[in-house]
Amino acid sequence: MTNKLYDTSLSLLTDLYQITMAYGYWKSKTAEKEAVFNLYFRKNPFNGGFTIACGLANVIGYIENFGFSKKDLRYLRSMTGNDGKPLFEEGFLEYLANLKLTCDIEAVPEGTVVFPNEPLVRVRGPILQCQLLETPLLNLINFESLIATKAARLRLVADTDTLLEFGLRRAQGVDGGMTASRAAYIGGCDATSNVLAGKLYDVPVRGTHAHSWVMSFDDEQQAFDTYASVLPNNVTLLVDTYDTLQGVRHAIETGRMLEKRGYKLAGIRLDSGDLAYLSIEARKLLDAAGFHETAIVASNDLDETIINSLKQQGAKINIWGVGTKLVTAFDQPALGGVYKLAALRNESSGAETSDHRETGHRVTDHWVYKMKLSEQAIKISTPGIQQVRRYRDERGFMADMIFDSDMNETDHHLTNKPATMIDPLDFTKRRRFDPKQAYEDLLVPVFQNGTCVYALPTVHEVRARVQTQLASLHSGVKRFVNPHTYPVGLEKNLHELKTELIMKLREGVEQ
Amino acid sequence: MTNKLYDTSLSLLTDLYQITMAYGYWKSKTAEKEAVFNLYFRKNPFNGGFTIACGLANVIGYIENFGFSKKDLRYLRSMTGNDGKPLFEEGFLEYLANLKLTCDIEAVPEGTVVFPNEPLVRVRGPILQCQLLETPLLNLINFESLIATKAARLRLVADTDTLLEFGLRRAQGVDGGMTASRAAYIGGCDATSNVLAGKLYDVPVRGTHAHSWVMSFDDEQQAFDTYASVLPNNVTLLVDTYDTLQGVRHAIETGRMLEKRGYKLAGIRLDSGDLAYLSIEARKLLDAAGFHETAIVASNDLDETIINSLKQQGAKINIWGVGTKLVTAFDQPALGGVYKLAALRNESSGAETSDHRETGHRVTDHWVYKMKLSEQAIKISTPGIQQVRRYRDERGFMADMIFDSDMNETDHHLTNKPATMIDPLDFTKRRRFDPKQAYEDLLVPVFQNGTCVYALPTVHEVRARVQTQLASLHSGVKRFVNPHTYPVGLEKNLHELKTELIMKLREGVEQ
Repeated sequence: MTNKLYDTSLSLLTDLYQITMAYGYWKSKTAEKEAVFNLYFRKNPFNGGFTIACGLANVIGYIENFGFSKKDLRYLRSMTGNDGKPLFEEGFLEYLANLKLTCDIEAVPEGTVVFPNEPLVRVRGPILQCQLLETPLLNLINFESLIATKAARLRLVADTDTLLEFGLRRAQGVDGGMTASRAAYIGGCDATSNVLAGKLYDVPVRGTHAHSWVMSFDDEQQAFDTYASVLPNNVTLLVDTYDTLQGVRHAIETGRMLEKRGYKLAGIRLDSGDLAYLSIEARKLLDAAGFHETAIVASNDLDETIINSLKQQGAKINIWGVGTKLVTAFDQPALGGVYKLAALRNESSGAETSDHRETGHRVTDHWVYKMKLSEQAIKISTPGIQQVRRYRDERGFMADMIFDSDMNETDHHLTNKPATMIDPLDFTKRRRFDPKQAYEDLLVPVFQNGTCVYALPTVHEVRARVQTQLASLHSGVKRFVNPHTYPVGLEKNLHELKTELIMKLREGVEQ
Repeated sequence: MTNKLYDTSLSLLTDLYQITMAYGYWKSKTAEKEAVFNLYFRKNPFNGGFTIACGLANVIGYIENFGFSKKDLRYLRSMTGNDGKPLFEEGFLEYLANLKLTCDIEAVPEGTVVFPNEPLVRVRGPILQCQLLETPLLNLINFESLIATKAARLRLVADTDTLLEFGLRRAQGVDGGMTASRAAYIGGCDATSNVLAGKLYDVPVRGTHAHSWVMSFDDEQQAFDTYASVLPNNVTLLVDTYDTLQGVRHAIETGRMLEKRGYKLAGIRLDSGDLAYLSIEARKLLDAAGFHETAIVASNDLDETIINSLKQQGAKINIWGVGTKLVTAFDQPALGGVYKLAALRNESSGAETSDHRETGHRVTDHWVYKMKLSEQAIKISTPGIQQVRRYRDERGFMADMIFDSDMNETDHHLTNKPATMIDPLDFTKRRRFDPKQAYEDLLVPVFQNGTCVYALPTVHEVRARVQTQLASLHSGVKRFVNPHTYPVGLEKNLHELKTELIMKLREGVEQ
């Protein structure tokens, strides 16, 4: 897997502060210090109850192509500070020129249902490298997860109807469109109109014709007949250029002509007006003429709310074309994923679990645990080498417990005795899980020492996974209005570690 | 100018229906018929009173690199219809293989203030070619104009403060970030955090450090001191990792250390909490310590409404870091630009102005005028070879009149006698302009017969143009709440042509 869209080096696709911090680590000789960062988001998008993880394939492509080109370094060499002097020393640029990523990366597979505060990607490696990956990883995971989630919501309302993604013209830039087409297919769309997404990402492609086709002829009947003659095996006619129901009558005439030649009128498309009324009337006309199998396609600023409403109104629509509202995630166009330092390798090893100097950072044999306080409670991060254990029973997913892999390796407590999970918002709410309870650990190895060890599933397999995952999720969590909150908590030892750290930091040792 | 980000062929970056229509034109031997399409939008974004045109540089890059590669054709050859048979004949694929764009394109220069229904791009050429350009042109112009407009609004509230764009991590894909960084600079930002945008688009780049820098040290003071030692000429310290005002005190200590070495503490940054309160308190601490010139940078989901509110609350912020809300145009993440057929070359020339067969399409010596009716009045298009004349006086822009270039050439009426402009929503509202009134015609030649004839200004020149343009716009139009509607109308002859066409089409000649 490589990122197929870009040939240019993308290693500078990052915030400048990642490079100035990298310079700081290099200059203070801490560049190689082993760190662990977690990538997670704090809130499901669209006021929904779940999120679909997506973007890992592009992350892998990005990392496999990582490396600073001569042009990149020339640009960095030209950068200056407030005093007009170079920002970076030559030795640092040489270091970047020779830099090969050696990180271990674990991630949740694409198409997995995920929830707030769960790590989607965990990066462990030299702190300088981890830092350089922050911005591109967030960019790729945030956007694709957002769109896959939007598409999954549309699939929930479309039920067994066909769902097409038509959004390229309104997408946020070239790969706002490309990436969205892939993620929309994964989330549950059946096809895209975007031909390049078909070519590069193996997404099925579908299309009809535009108003301009009709307008380019002297009359609509002639336009329809010509289109049907030229592409008899792909005829869906757009009927609203002049008058919608008149257009349906013209389409029926064309359909009769097609039938004589042994072809079928696949569909008609409505793109304006009252879609409920017009689809019902169009269905009557088609049925009366014997075109029972001709589908009605609708488009025009559709989203899950409008589709739901049209269905409740009895609209006779079989195929939904969704564009702008899907590819831009119009009602919430960004997922607020973040990437936080959670632990640093303890270099003065040998000491038992103890407090680290005066700052309250907790230390084990292996790690110094790290967290960020904040003026805002929601912005407090969780420390640790995090993994997510998803418990399930015969009815589906029960709960997700975030635990620390390192502690677990040390204590074996998750394999020997019941695990206790604590609600992050109310520490008196606890759940116990028997060690024999069925579970799956969500993060899987993707890179080991900089080498990809992950067998990338096809886009079709990822798409199927979304539906399997959603089937295991309680319907209350999938509800759009006030969805039930799926239980996600911290394993007790991690919870206690975090609480202790917050208390120590809040005590303000340094004041 | 080439599009610098993509090396792969982007000619398939289009909706499938453009290619099936192209096939239809080719197959029905109308591919070379000369057509005119206009690209325009119907409503200013953000409930605002104006829009900034942007994206032309990328359009030029796209068109100069246009051409179907062997891989593109192989993919098209593999496409099938409902019956499993190939969608396209081999002859068509050969036609595409040899296709060179020969269009004439006129466009409004980037950085120009524009309004609803004005053509931003006008494409004239073989209808097959015009059609293939629809989707990429819309994609590129829609998104960049949206972001440039958002940035221009931010610049209006930021006034003379520094405005930084920090959005890459939340942008919609790789070039959701890249394109946004360029458009945000054009619209009025001073710099971006996106290093690749700096390298490829010559946008100034700025940055500080992240919480992880502070967390990677045993204490905040040590983190600040180290950063300042390493990059003494670029020191802005993020103070809210643990406790904001404590962080300011630590920053002051570092500032003292810097001063001893002959450097300055450039700034501190707040990224959470009550920015009004914290900035005022931070300013007091800085001033009391003599750091009057140290700037206060603020970030955290800022947009023009929040900046405006913070300023009203007396926040002491000098530099605004804007991310998600800018690069995704969060409150309206798409501009609904469209691309409509407006005229076809009259091939049975010689006839005087007359009606064309039974359809009501109006014919002149040169053109058959085309328009789309719709169930929704706002979706009715305007026919004609459109140009926009912007009248101005010593106070600034007066009004924009959309007229037909071809009629004007024929009749010379705009040069000889007063022009009459008609309000599109109320035909009784008319304005007359003396032929001596100062004006500028907005669309300028960009491609002639497929060759670029446009000298592309630098990104800095485009950015300066935005401010000059905004200075000529009445303050009421720039207001955020219920802005005054800038007058845009149709020249009388074009208005009459349009009305006549609507009437004819509505009469339903064909019923």
